[in-house]
Amino acid sequence: MPTTHAYSAPSAKAALGPFTLERREPRPQDVLIDIQYCGVCHSDIHQARDEWGGASFPMVPGHEIVGKVSQVGSAVTDFKVGDSVGVGCFVDSCRDCPACLAGEEQYCERGSVNTYNGREKDGTPTYGGYSTRITVDARYVLRIPEGIPLDRAAPLLCAGITTYSPLRHYGVKAGSKLAVVGLGGLGHMGVKLGKALGAEVTVLSTSPSKRDDALALGAMHFAATSDKQTFKALANQFDFILDTVSAPHDYNAYLRLLKLDGTMILVGAPESPAPLAAFPLIMKRRKLGGSLIGGIRETQEMLDFCAKHQVASDVEVIPIQQINEAYERMLKGDVRYRFVIDIASLKNP
Amino acid sequence: MPTTHAYSAPSAKAALGPFTLERREPRPQDVLIDIQYCGVCHSDIHQARDEWGGASFPMVPGHEIVGKVSQVGSAVTDFKVGDSVGVGCFVDSCRDCPACLAGEEQYCERGSVNTYNGREKDGTPTYGGYSTRITVDARYVLRIPEGIPLDRAAPLLCAGITTYSPLRHYGVKAGSKLAVVGLGGLGHMGVKLGKALGAEVTVLSTSPSKRDDALALGAMHFAATSDKQTFKALANQFDFILDTVSAPHDYNAYLRLLKLDGTMILVGAPESPAPLAAFPLIMKRRKLGGSLIGGIRETQEMLDFCAKHQVASDVEVIPIQQINEAYERMLKGDVRYRFVIDIASLKNP
Repeated sequence: MPTTHAYSAPSAKAALGPFTLERREPRPQDVLIDIQYCGVCHSDIHQARDEWGGASFPMVPGHEIVGKVSQVGSAVTDFKVGDSVGVGCFVDSCRDCPACLAGEEQYCERGSVNTYNGREKDGTPTYGGYSTRITVDARYVLRIPEGIPLDRAAPLLCAGITTYSPLRHYGVKAGSKLAVVGLGGLGHMGVKLGKALGAEVTVLSTSPSKRDDALALGAMHFAATSDKQTFKALANQFDFILDTVSAPHDYNAYLRLLKLDGTMILVGAPESPAPLAAFPLIMKRRKLGGSLIGGIRETQEMLDFCAKHQVASDVEVIPIQQINEAYERMLKGDVRYRFVIDIASLKNP
Repeated sequence: MPTTHAYSAPSAKAALGPFTLERREPRPQDVLIDIQYCGVCHSDIHQARDEWGGASFPMVPGHEIVGKVSQVGSAVTDFKVGDSVGVGCFVDSCRDCPACLAGEEQYCERGSVNTYNGREKDGTPTYGGYSTRITVDARYVLRIPEGIPLDRAAPLLCAGITTYSPLRHYGVKAGSKLAVVGLGGLGHMGVKLGKALGAEVTVLSTSPSKRDDALALGAMHFAATSDKQTFKALANQFDFILDTVSAPHDYNAYLRLLKLDGTMILVGAPESPAPLAAFPLIMKRRKLGGSLIGGIRETQEMLDFCAKHQVASDVEVIPIQQINEAYERMLKGDVRYRFVIDIASLKNP
């Protein structure tokens, strides 16, 4: 196969730079995708810098991939050359554990195969979407419906499904009072999707400066968590809290904002544990749950939902050459609300 | 009214000793109860020693009350003189908030009136079951069904409902794999009730010496948590964990024992928070919930369920004069599994 251009992190301490790799020739079930856009997820930084441990280098990050089918294997019937498709956080799974059989491959008991920084079943390292193309089994490929601009669709593959899946699983519906904690890549999708589901959305953010954005994104209310009065005024108010913050914070203070039988859902994963008191859970029978991305079937459902409700990510499109600067800006929260790499910059550097 | 004999804590630092008080004459809706037995709950110690703050002295503890009706008000139709009845953790509530209207008075938005260390709506301090009788509004009185020995019924009013309510609420049923953490007053009821509901029960306890008891109480399996191998061997095994431990412990280690979509329920309330990591919740969409006793309707359901399934507490009956020694033994975990005061010892000291 011709060489695939990419950007990789050569080690945990080094900046990302140009790299070349070989993608496999499509097997009968495979789709070869010419990548057009790739979203930049905060977990790209965590992994490229080996902050979660176990990183494999060189690493080509990227699991918010959108592109066009350029070739299909002989057994592929769901996709044809020219289709707009997406690839999310995983490209394979065991396919026969209870989770896979239930279509929840993200919880595969043997571990799904991560799109990057993972290993195919045959041991081949996986490389992600900061590259010009990728070969993926059609079973793990999503269809991008018409009506969503492709650059704005890319972040749906991780940020979108990570927030959609728990909103659906835990039962957010029309009339639900939903608080979204944190207005970053995940949070801004939580607001849009929560509103599209009919919930009354409140944004809770440390930054009072995000009020206007929150309301423009679809929130009905905004409250600054830097103001302690917020935690008194909003006590016992919410049916659901979607907590997207990945820095350690006081879970107890947020739990007290839930009504009787309310649920707080963690989708941000702070690196260190935070103290949890039993009383806020006990006194109002509250629940604290987690959620991990979503399965292929639900990701397709989310994409179709987004097309129907005109939901897409707010993005800042960058050439790949700005990726290291983008990482630094993300660490300062300076992006509204997702960087998306224009992969054309890789083809024609 | 004639004087009511009792035992009270005169202050947070003092031993309990004899005390006398006046109960109110029954109003039209009231029942006057001659107390026969009162269970000794760990929260009696916490409150008598003001470990939760806000204690009011002198304090007469006791909220696992069983006795016989000796007088009824003119409007009482559900009880008659001679009936065996019980009183649990609260004796009144606002009666018109959503929780009260739903029959979940334990979550009353204005705060239910605690059986002791509380205040009636008119401001009168409440005194609990370490006493010869008590006047209670019939709406907050339970019927003790035939077939449960009265001394063994007393702990059902708190330890029984505290474990029954979450098992029912969170959906433990025939075939559920349930772990009960801690084999004390709450834990031993969790085992019995879990088994009666058809669950396959495993006891997780720091004390390997409790293995035989656990199996005798109805557990199918026992694992010592002092053995680190336990946490490897039982990873991803349980649908539910009922956590009855009130000393701080590592929630994360237990959460990892839950299957995909499993739920851990806290009914023990450690005085200080414990570190919680987001990953164990996120990676298997696990939930951590709390639960607080139960409402009047569900407490009656629990008592009827216990009578039907021949479930009662394992008790050590003591005279009131041994209460201070009993507290010390409880703090060492030296009771199998609940002290119950024979109130006859108060009538005839």
